[in-house]
Order: sequence, then structure tokens, then C-alpha cells
Amino acid sequence: MLRSPDELRDLVEGYLVELALSSDLGGLEEALRYPLESGGKRVRPVLSLAVCEAAGAVAEHCLPAAAAVELVHTFSLVHDDLPALDDDDERRGRPSAHVAFGEATALLAGDALLAEAFRLALSYPSPMVGRELAEATLAMIGGQYRDVTGDTGDLAGLHRLKTGALFSASVGVALWVAEVPEAGQPAWRAFGGELGLLFQLVDDLLDGDGYAAAHGVEDARRAADEAAARAQERLRALDADTAMLAEIVSGLAARTA
Amino acid sequence: MLRSPDELRDLVEGYLVELALSSDLGGLEEALRYPLESGGKRVRPVLSLAVCEAAGAVAEHCLPAAAAVELVHTFSLVHDDLPALDDDDERRGRPSAHVAFGEATALLAGDALLAEAFRLALSYPSPMVGRELAEATLAMIGGQYRDVTGDTGDLAGLHRLKTGALFSASVGVALWVAEVPEAGQPAWRAFGGELGLLFQLVDDLLDGDGYAAAHGVEDARRAADEAAARAQERLRALDADTAMLAEIVSGLAARTA
Repeated sequence: MLRSPDELRDLVEGYLVELALSSDLGGLEEALRYPLESGGKRVRPVLSLAVCEAAGAVAEHCLPAAAAVELVHTFSLVHDDLPALDDDDERRGRPSAHVAFGEATALLAGDALLAEAFRLALSYPSPMVGRELAEATLAMIGGQYRDVTGDTGDLAGLHRLKTGALFSASVGVALWVAEVPEAGQPAWRAFGGELGLLFQLVDDLLDGDGYAAAHGVEDARRAADEAAARAQERLRALDADTAMLAEIVSGLAARTA
Repeated sequence: MLRSPDELRDLVEGYLVELALSSDLGGLEEALRYPLESGGKRVRPVLSLAVCEAAGAVAEHCLPAAAAVELVHTFSLVHDDLPALDDDDERRGRPSAHVAFGEATALLAGDALLAEAFRLALSYPSPMVGRELAEATLAMIGGQYRDVTGDTGDLAGLHRLKTGALFSASVGVALWVAEVPEAGQPAWRAFGGELGLLFQLVDDLLDGDGYAAAHGVEDARRAADEAAARAQERLRALDADTAMLAEIVSGLAARTA
């Protein structure tokens, strides 16, 4: 019996709350926990756990990898909010990390979240989870750099870097943990690609920017629905129980926040 | 025939110049290469290669691990120089990264250097090199946090975090690459600990701060010489050709810049 997205989300939350951080961080630990326990949707780690279960492995085995993905995501939010980048004072209805702790501490907390992510990814005997994460992190940073420099002409390329890479990695790390042979991975990864696109298109719709600003709301809605349909099709092509993954696709297509 | 520290330094420089970075970084690559090719002493990667050779392995096998350590060191310099932290406009006689490229780019370049470091560390089949690096990075960040918050009372503890951890990791990664069995590693690691202490004490002497400011120049010089003597003693206790490592100890004890 596969667990529902809500059950998997509870699993993620429980793991993150209990997560032991490096004792060398001392008082900095508080500034890592603050953005990490701020009620995010946990879309990426839930996706990892759901892929892991659909691929026939125990979700619990995937928790360190799933948490690593969430830590990379959180690191990027903390740094993106800094005055030197997006200068956002609020995040999820609370003061952002640099407002709550000061710029110096937020900068170091972001660095530490990234290092902790790799520590988690490296808790597996194989280096593949960590490799997947390193590539995705570099793509994400490359996307943020394009944003900063205003090089946003190629919207599809920008989305692939800024959002798609870490979504793909959420799927990828789960495939390694579930020991899905490399030859069988492309079909799963194609699903991850469509899901990342879907997520970004709905984000643009909700924020009224990106694709929605460039092509209008109706076009963006249609593109999102098409991405959702392709994601569902990819799932049906897999020889696995993908009921919960299908639920995740529907949830992302219909989300309003 | 073991290679001299100067020969190993050339090997490191050549590797760093040729190092392929993630193509997803796009134009950000320049801001990674700038601090990375700024004529640092390469103390840490040379130490890695020398340990690797002394432990009976080929230095070239250790190049990705040695470069990973140097990238972590470079990441920390780029972020530490930012206005939110030490606000240093110059580094090694040139404008620091944020002066040359702007704060946003320097921040992202630092992030990318850290991610590239893990990509290199993860090029080995075993996760041990990456684990060593993650632990050391977290210790280093914890040390920087203590500095930022003025929690500098326990100078030995601060040194261990800020400098010692990455020095120990320079030795540690080489031991894993050279496949030194875990039982044989403590003797090598004890050498690394003394060397890190020596490096920091000489740094304090040259900068007139830290230990030198707290205990006076004479005491600091004596402490440095004692650390150098203990490091040499540790080398003599090893069943290995440590001639080049002994040369590194002498060089660090006598350095004037």
C-alpha cells in the first residue's frame, strides 16, 4: 500500500525536525532551522519519496536524499532573498532569514544549508545521490545568475535551470536510492522534466510573471494543462504503481498557492 | 622519486586552469575563475598531493580531491570578503570578487565554487572524500560564524574550526584516495592537526592578530616552532617517505607572506 502525498509530507516534516546538524555550527544552527521549518510545501522531497515508493523501495530509505534536495532548495531561497540578490524582506509570511538574523548570519546559514545537503547526500554508500545534487545545484545557480543579469530571453532554458534541474534531481536521487538500473531511468526522468515545467508554469500563473506575462494567462493555463497531461502519460507508460505520483501531478496542476 | 612541493604546486595550477566547470553556469564561470586563478599559495592542495605520494599513491589520482579542497577554500574567501561579512575590497593585491563583479555575482560565484567542489569530490567511487569535505566545510562555516558574532574567547577552538578543519581534510581526502586503511589514518591525521595549528599561528604572527595579539609575538613564535617540531615528529613516526612533507612543514614555519 503506497502512502499518500500528505502522509509522505508528514514523514518529511518529522525527519527535518529531528535532523541532527553539525555540532560545529554552534549558534548558527538556529538560522538554518528557521527557514527550514517555515512551512514550505515540501513538493520536492515528497516527490522523491513518492518516486522511491513507486519504484518499489521503502520511502524511509530515501529520507536523507529527499531532505538533501529540500536543503538545497532552502539554501537557494535564503541566498536569493538577500539584499544583494532579490532583496525580499518576507518569505512565507514571515521575515526572511536576513531580516530575522542579519545579513552575515543569513549568508553563512545558506552556505551551511548547502554543505549539510551534501552531508546528507553523502550518507549513502554510492556517490550518485550526491552527484545528482551537485549538477542540479550548479544548474540552479546558473539560472539565478541569468535572472540577476537580465538574460531571461530564453524562458524555457531559464525554467529548466531555475526550477527544472532540482525537480529532475528530486526524481533522480530517488531512482538511485531505489536502485533503478540506469537503463530504466530515462522514462522516470522524462516524467520529472514535465513535472518541473508544470510547477514553473503554475508558479508563473500565480505570480503573473514569466510565461504568463510573456504569453498571457490563457496560454499559460493551456501550457500548464498540457504539461500535466504529458506528465500523466509518462506515468502510465511506467511499469509501476504510480497512483500517488498521479495525485501529485493533479495537485500541482490545481494548486492555488 | 617523490615530487617537490614546487612540482606539486605546478601540477595543481595546471589542473585548476584546465578544470572544466559546469556549462550551466554560463557567464558566471568568469567569476569563479577570477578568485581561483589569483595566485594563491595552494598550501592545502599541495599538502593533499604530498600526502598522497607519501602514502604510496600517484599524486594525479588525488588532483580532483585536492582541487575540491582548494575550491572550498576559495568559496570561503569570496564569501568572507563580501560587505555583509569582512567587507574586504582587496584580496592578494587585486580587487576582491565582489568589487570586480558586483555583490550578486560574487555571492553566486561563491555558492557555485562550493557546489563545484562537491562535484569534484564526488568523482570518486567512494563517498568518503565528499564526506570529509562536507564535515570540514561545516566546521569552517561554524568558525566564521563565531568570528562574526565576536565569540572568539576560545582561540584554540576557533582555530580548529576556521583553519584546522580544512587542513585536516586536506590530509584526510588524500588518505582516502591513497586507500590508507582507516586503522592507519590517525597517525597521518595527527600530523595534519599540527600542521593546521602551525599555519594559523604563523598567520597570526604575520597579521599581528589572534594568538600573537593575545599572547605576544615571542610566545606566538615559540608556539609555532613547537607545532612545527611536533609535526616533524609525527612524520618521523610514520612508516613512509615523508621527506617532501617535512619540507612543507619547514616552508610553513619559515614563511613570510
